[in-house]
Amino acid sequence: KRQGFPEVIYGEGKTAEQILLIINSIRSNHNDVLVTRITKEKAEYILQEYPEFFYHELAQILFWKEDPKADSFKGYIAIVCAGTSDLKVAEEAAVTAEALGCNVRRIYDVGVAGIHRLFDNIEEIQNATVSVVVAGMEGALPSVVGGLVSHPIMAVPTSIGYGANFNGLSALLTMLNSCASGISVVNIDNGFGAAYNAALIYRIAKKGVHQDEDIVL
Amino acid sequence: KRQGFPEVIYGEGKTAEQILLIINSIRSNHNDVLVTRITKEKAEYILQEYPEFFYHELAQILFWKEDPKADSFKGYIAIVCAGTSDLKVAEEAAVTAEALGCNVRRIYDVGVAGIHRLFDNIEEIQNATVSVVVAGMEGALPSVVGGLVSHPIMAVPTSIGYGANFNGLSALLTMLNSCASGISVVNIDNGFGAAYNAALIYRIAKKGVHQDEDIVL
Amino acid sequence: KRQGFPEVIYGEGKTAEQILLIINSIRSNHNDVLVTRITKEKAEYILQEYPEFFYHELAQILFWKEDPKADSFKGYIAIVCAGTSDLKVAEEAAVTAEALGCNVRRIYDVGVAGIHRLFDNIEEIQNATVSVVVAGMEGALPSVVGGLVSHPIMAVPTSIGYGANFNGLSALLTMLNSCASGISVVNIDNGFGAAYNAALIYRIAKKGVHQDEDIVL
Amino acid sequence: KRQGFPEVIYGEGKTAEQILLIINSIRSNHNDVLVTRITKEKAEYILQEYPEFFYHELAQILFWKEDPKADSFKGYIAIVCAGTSDLKVAEEAAVTAEALGCNVRRIYDVGVAGIHRLFDNIEEIQNATVSVVVAGMEGALPSVVGGLVSHPIMAVPTSIGYGANFNGLSALLTMLNSCASGISVVNIDNGFGAAYNAALIYRIAKKGVHQDEDIVL
Amino acid sequence: KRQGFPEVIYGEGKTAEQILLIINSIRSNHNDVLVTRITKEKAEYILQEYPEFFYHELAQILFWKEDPKADSFKGYIAIVCAGTSDLKVAEEAAVTAEALGCNVRRIYDVGVAGIHRLFDNIEEIQNATVSVVVAGMEGALPSVVGGLVSHPIMAVPTSIGYGANFNGLSALLTMLNSCASGISVVNIDNGFGAAYNAALIYRIAKKGVHQDEDIVL
Amino acid sequence: KRQGFPEVIYGEGKTAEQILLIINSIRSNHNDVLVTRITKEKAEYILQEYPEFFYHELAQILFWKEDPKADSFKGYIAIVCAGTSDLKVAEEAAVTAEALGCNVRRIYDVGVAGIHRLFDNIEEIQNATVSVVVAGMEGALPSVVGGLVSHPIMAVPTSIGYGANFNGLSALLTMLNSCASGISVVNIDNGFGAAYNAALIYRIAKKGVHQDEDIVL
Amino acid sequence: KRQGFPEVIYGEGKTAEQILLIINSIRSNHNDVLVTRITKEKAEYILQEYPEFFYHELAQILFWKEDPKADSFKGYIAIVCAGTSDLKVAEEAAVTAEALGCNVRRIYDVGVAGIHRLFDNIEEIQNATVSVVVAGMEGALPSVVGGLVSHPIMAVPTSIGYGANFNGLSALLTMLNSCASGISVVNIDNGFGAAYNAALIYRIAKKGVHQDEDIVL
Amino acid sequence: KRQGFPEVIYGEGKTAEQILLIINSIRSNHNDVLVTRITKEKAEYILQEYPEFFYHELAQILFWKEDPKADSFKGYIAIVCAGTSDLKVAEEAAVTAEALGCNVRRIYDVGVAGIHRLFDNIEEIQNATVSVVVAGMEGALPSVVGGLVSHPIMAVPTSIGYGANFNGLSALLTMLNSCASGISVVNIDNGFGAAYNAALIYRIAKKGVHQDEDIVL
Ligand SMILES: Nc1ncnc2c1ncn2[C@@H]1O[C@H](COP(=O)(O)O)[C@@H](O)[C@H]1O
Ligand SMILES: Nc1ncnc2c1ncn2[C@@H]1O[C@H](COP(=O)(O)O)[C@@H](O)[C@H]1O
Ligand SMILES: Nc1ncnc2c1ncn2[C@@H]1O[C@H](COP(=O)(O)O)[C@@H](O)[C@H]1O
Ligand SMILES: Nc1ncnc2c1ncn2[C@@H]1O[C@H](COP(=O)(O)O)[C@@H](O)[C@H]1O
Ligand SMILES: [Mg+2]
Ligand SMILES: [Mg+2]
Ligand SMILES: [Mg+2]
Ligand SMILES: [Mg+2]
Ligand SMILES: [Mg+2]
Ligand SMILES: [Mg+2]
Ligand SMILES: [Mg+2]
Ligand SMILES: [Mg+2]
Repeated sequence: KRQGFPEVIYGEGKTAEQILLIINSIRSNHNDVLVTRITKEKAEYILQEYPEFFYHELAQILFWKEDPKADSFKGYIAIVCAGTSDLKVAEEAAVTAEALGCNVRRIYDVGVAGIHRLFDNIEEIQNATVSVVVAGMEGALPSVVGGLVSHPIMAVPTSIGYGANFNGLSALLTMLNSCASGISVVNIDNGFGAAYNAALIYRIAKKGVHQDEDIVL
Repeated sequence: KRQGFPEVIYGEGKTAEQILLIINSIRSNHNDVLVTRITKEKAEYILQEYPEFFYHELAQILFWKEDPKADSFKGYIAIVCAGTSDLKVAEEAAVTAEALGCNVRRIYDVGVAGIHRLFDNIEEIQNATVSVVVAGMEGALPSVVGGLVSHPIMAVPTSIGYGANFNGLSALLTMLNSCASGISVVNIDNGFGAAYNAALIYRIAKKGVHQDEDIVL
Repeated sequence: KRQGFPEVIYGEGKTAEQILLIINSIRSNHNDVLVTRITKEKAEYILQEYPEFFYHELAQILFWKEDPKADSFKGYIAIVCAGTSDLKVAEEAAVTAEALGCNVRRIYDVGVAGIHRLFDNIEEIQNATVSVVVAGMEGALPSVVGGLVSHPIMAVPTSIGYGANFNGLSALLTMLNSCASGISVVNIDNGFGAAYNAALIYRIAKKGVHQDEDIVL
Repeated sequence: KRQGFPEVIYGEGKTAEQILLIINSIRSNHNDVLVTRITKEKAEYILQEYPEFFYHELAQILFWKEDPKADSFKGYIAIVCAGTSDLKVAEEAAVTAEALGCNVRRIYDVGVAGIHRLFDNIEEIQNATVSVVVAGMEGALPSVVGGLVSHPIMAVPTSIGYGANFNGLSALLTMLNSCASGISVVNIDNGFGAAYNAALIYRIAKKGVHQDEDIVL
Repeated sequence: KRQGFPEVIYGEGKTAEQILLIINSIRSNHNDVLVTRITKEKAEYILQEYPEFFYHELAQILFWKEDPKADSFKGYIAIVCAGTSDLKVAEEAAVTAEALGCNVRRIYDVGVAGIHRLFDNIEEIQNATVSVVVAGMEGALPSVVGGLVSHPIMAVPTSIGYGANFNGLSALLTMLNSCASGISVVNIDNGFGAAYNAALIYRIAKKGVHQDEDIVL
Repeated sequence: KRQGFPEVIYGEGKTAEQILLIINSIRSNHNDVLVTRITKEKAEYILQEYPEFFYHELAQILFWKEDPKADSFKGYIAIVCAGTSDLKVAEEAAVTAEALGCNVRRIYDVGVAGIHRLFDNIEEIQNATVSVVVAGMEGALPSVVGGLVSHPIMAVPTSIGYGANFNGLSALLTMLNSCASGISVVNIDNGFGAAYNAALIYRIAKKGVHQDEDIVL
Repeated sequence: KRQGFPEVIYGEGKTAEQILLIINSIRSNHNDVLVTRITKEKAEYILQEYPEFFYHELAQILFWKEDPKADSFKGYIAIVCAGTSDLKVAEEAAVTAEALGCNVRRIYDVGVAGIHRLFDNIEEIQNATVSVVVAGMEGALPSVVGGLVSHPIMAVPTSIGYGANFNGLSALLTMLNSCASGISVVNIDNGFGAAYNAALIYRIAKKGVHQDEDIVL
Repeated sequence: KRQGFPEVIYGEGKTAEQILLIINSIRSNHNDVLVTRITKEKAEYILQEYPEFFYHELAQILFWKEDPKADSFKGYIAIVCAGTSDLKVAEEAAVTAEALGCNVRRIYDVGVAGIHRLFDNIEEIQNATVSVVVAGMEGALPSVVGGLVSHPIMAVPTSIGYGANFNGLSALLTMLNSCASGISVVNIDNGFGAAYNAALIYRIAKKGVHQDEDIVL
């Protein structure tokens, strides 16, 4: 259980049987488990064996957590995105963060093309411990949010778009070149990675200077 | 004098002598002249022959205009950019638009990383006939402006940046993928082209439905 | 109703149910509606609820317009393209412009490889208020048209081609590098965006200097 | 003084005079100041006016700090890099972090091609609050470190390399595709950005849950 | 039988009938045969004619070998890879090497993100004559192995990954830019090519200075 | 004297001394000689030894020809280009073709942005045996010419342009994707190669069916 | 009948009905017709109406020729390629050339990896009027052939390959950078274009200096 | 002295002083030393201290070897390249191999555009233990050599070329996509790396099965 977090399985390209085998070996040590990029069909196969697991279809995540009660810590991770197109990636981030034991607030539908909705929600973002900002197309949202908040931002480019979007390259470059400070970037569509990083920071915030071995999230 | 505009010479890669020869042949027809991408040294060579010409060093533009009095039309072109780095390109746009006989307002230093300055100036941009929005680095400014105004925007990516900026590719892709409607894009650093297009629209605004042959800007 | 135009929904990646929900909320305010990139199947689902809507299959556009009578303004938008391959994008532009209340003239089948057909139709293009020029393969058409007309051109590269076309990259670069003035560019296959920009200019032409709040197209 | 940090000036592409003007206006509010990417020549010009400023030539950073005493907090930022080639970027990160008031430890010369040196120093890295890992060439160092530590890593690709390195693209892609969790990435050569992000996390660690307005680093 | 090795047929893009014809002509000379990239369906078609052939489904390889007894030579080729995702390519390499008459040891599941498993197996890798190291995602494994062994490494990037992986480009660039000496690279997913090169070296090791015509593997 | 043409030396990256040595060895067999990409300084060094050689500075070509009298054949190669920017490459082509013994006609300053000048000269192009069409920026000229002539066209993209031109990539892709038939393409700026190919065709035209060994151009 | 050649229809992306309509209008003028990139299904639809047409499935070409008797001219076009993978493109070239009335000789299965087969056939290639050389993978064949023949070569890169082949980009770049003179290049997989260009040269060879209007191939 | 080879210093980007310091620390253990990418100026600085070192200017290599007598082993490394342009990289490979204690034979000036010279020298290449094949421009040489020899080939693309060469990308892709077996590839211009790999194989050939600890080259 490195980092006090569940064991993580990347489901893409693995058969349901392969995933089940890995889960079995993890569970023999009573560990928490998180499977990402897992389709409904594969999840249902696992759920027959482990009906207590929770599957989130939009996020394509299956997980089990020994102690699922909500965190009493007053901090939270803000998951911010523009609209319906990026929901899948935003939910991968949100559900990952929840599975890692963090409080999460979703602030969706706040794209830069209609910036007033972002301003209507900016306080909730500003008060977060750390934000995950998801954006496709031109990927400008992290830059704008970055100029308005003073905590770390994990920026996630998505592959949503067409033509000169080049499957997310446009949004990726935008985020890497951001003028705003406090932004770092993960791979295209990598909602999981952004949430994992955010959870590490959340854990630091929760424990302050004593952020090491003794943490139980 | 196609389009009622001055003859335009692209100065890059031409010697001062070559430019002078072209000017001579244009001027024999009493035409207005606009030279872009012309260094101070070359401009001074021309100015010895044509001391009445005007040279703008930051914009690298040299021009002559038969009738330089300000336009009484109440419309104007807003030239919008983020900061000191993009000034050169913004000035190429602004001086071009002026040389084409348009009213121009400069709204500089309004980048998305500090979006409040943009909001302080948004009305002046909204009231423009057409805007030229210049941005380097991640190039997010046109998207944000595009969501706030309802006139056409000419977006100009600049080559300012480093690393994954790839000499302006990042800003170019951002602008081509913008979620906001009303944005079209010109080549990297092409302040001239954006201003030229804006001037065509300005001319249409000035004359309304009668936008054809009889225009004298 | 920002910009006096209908609410626009980008249909790609949205289910018929999601689109219907958005339409319902828009229509509760009696607004005009325009849905792009919507397949026949999804459109038919919507048409059951809103049989008065108009669906254009080639353009993949569904829209409703309160006041669909033709515009008495003598200006028009020229939609120019080379041949059958680019028809889909050209029609996305043409139908969008019509749905935005503009007069439209289609000048198709005028590619540069057989330039005489372009010359046979050049006057109709020259007399337009603004042109949308659509081209795939090498994308040279906007450059040639740009040299022959004196109004603004919205250039649309298409993804038509193979090999070193790289899904429209070739045509996109061609248009961004055009030697002709008066050309600005939108994303690959973005017929909608080009038409939207053209409609903004058309509106300016129609109203002249008074181009602001009081416009009803 | 957004975020409790000094005002930051990006020195590249600004003249010494321009930088001095910006410093003057900042200093009139008694703020801390940090200038990055500033050459020795420009720095010396500023130092004539502000001899109390500190210039670090390798890092190309000039700064002034009201209260420069070391932080009593027991956490620290580990700055990790492979060898002499990446020193410039590593020092931009290290000096930035120091100027932002953080404890810093440098763990240099620990590249993956001779992984034993990394293992000799791994405990000092593991005990850090957050790490900045700088790597050029193939950029594999963050992946290896990421597998060995359980705190957040800010990965900085550098432009060091030749041929198929493509000025840092290789290292950038490596880091974005890392199999290890806990890694996020900034622009090529952006030591400043990585250190800024790390300092935000360091500040959170120092103050724990109360990470907001009341922080004085 | 150039190089003392079987005739090799690249199965991709050939029909089962075409492959059968080529095998027939080869077998008329009693040669060994190796077919790569051949699907189960095509292989079954061939196996009806040549039931003595061996088909390996994961490796997608079909081959026949006159003298299949194990090599008494004490050297071996180590096939090293990170996890389940790269198995297909690793097995293409392993089965190719076996079909070329070499001793092979598989050291799988030793990725850099969990470097301890690599260290648990490092001696077996170090004692190999030559290694084939297969890696997708960021492709860092050959660099780390390269620093720990003193024999030649054939590095194989795989197309496993997503987003900024660009179908294996990321891993390919990583390997080409490796800081470790002793590494050379083959095409993305080219397990066959790496194994073929490794087998050439294995043959040299087996025969020492007399490595020419007289070899029968 | 392969192909009945002079020996060709690529001057770039060779010292004047190296070039002289190669010329000496060629000339000992009384062969014609053609050196491309040779600067004035290097050429002057050679001319001291061989004052009878001819140097063309704009074309950067130095050559000697045993029998320089004009060709009585009525065919000719048309060298077509847009304007002053592409002159260097056009002249590399023109002087090469002359040095290879062909009649050449230069039709310069006929770019697509002002297509009327092209039409004023189209007959001279149409009557050529073969054309070399040189274009930078968007590189559309070969497509337009290709639609108007019925002989083979050698298209030469140049590196002239900026921004999204990517050093000639834009023009190269344009030409490779041309809709017009009869066009084939050489490397960016390779005026020499285009002229060489054109000269091969010219030679075929001159001799008709007997185009082989017995040709003396 | 521009250029004395049949009317050509690019079948890709057109329905059988659209193709039939175009053929009808062409045939009303008794013209020859050539349709490329046409699937068997579409071709069969046309053949019901025009049973005298000839369809070549591997080449995906449908054509009709008024006067199909073999050309008595002793020249021929050599179509050269490496192996079975490139056959489709080679046949597109070969059948196109035949449909344009040229003598064609196919020299297949002569790739550079087994160069002896190329040498066994080199005389037949050398004696051709012009060659079309087709190659996928690394695309080296035109360079080698180019060094051995003294007539023009039309090089066709194919999209055959995988990994770092990037769908033919590798072969395309190889051919554009060829050290051998006499090579020009067409788009990836463009067998038609290469054959068309070759046929233009063949026609010149057949008629010599009188290569214009009066040709009937 | 890992691998029985000298300590290697990559000189690029290091000052003469830095290099001297590293040499001093190595030499205190009486080790052999090899510095690559070192300019004449820097080398002369080192030679003042260590006059017994040997500097090779074309190869930009400085080295010292305890026991420089020629190897009595009858094997050798063939260094193969096309012409004068690639000499620098070829010499980096050749001098590296010599400094590593290997017998080396240089077979230069054998490019594919004039393949007869390659055939005149093919036996000397075929008899080598291992070959390093260096090629710029289209980089086809390793494919051709690979088809003619049955030992391993280390292919080195060089950055020589222009236009669509993209600084060696063309040659790199060619080599990665080679149809010939037995070829593996190193980074662009990495003559050192290729020679190092070749020397590892040479060492295996020299010692046969006993290729481990006890080797003194
Ligand atoms: N075909 C299209 N291509 C590009 N952008 C579009 C297209 N159709 C609609 N849009 C834009 O997408 C926005 C709506 O996006 P959404 O909120 O996802 O439905 C509109 O305001 C338009 O600016
Ligand atoms: N070395 C650097 N790399 C990237 N961004 C920087 C760097 N130094 C400063 N910045 C950013 O640039 C902003 C200042 O830009 P400017 O207003 O042009 O001086 C700061 O707020 C930082 O976010
Ligand atoms: N999986 C593979 N990847 C790359 N090259 C291969 C592969 N399998 C076979 N080859 C090569 O392809 C050649 C045979 O190609 P072909 O003549 O098309 O069957 C062999 O000599 C091998 O060098
Ligand atoms: N300007 C040029 N661009 C491309 N290739 C050239 C050029 N000039 C000469 N060449 C080719 O380079 C070969 C001579 O190269 P080299 O042996 O290095 O002098 C000639 O045979 C030509 O095919
Ligand atoms: Mg911020
Ligand atoms: Mg707008
Ligand atoms: Mg125009
Ligand atoms: Mg970690
Ligand atoms: Mg090693
Ligand atoms: Mg033509
Ligand atoms: Mg030749
Ligand atoms: Mg071989």
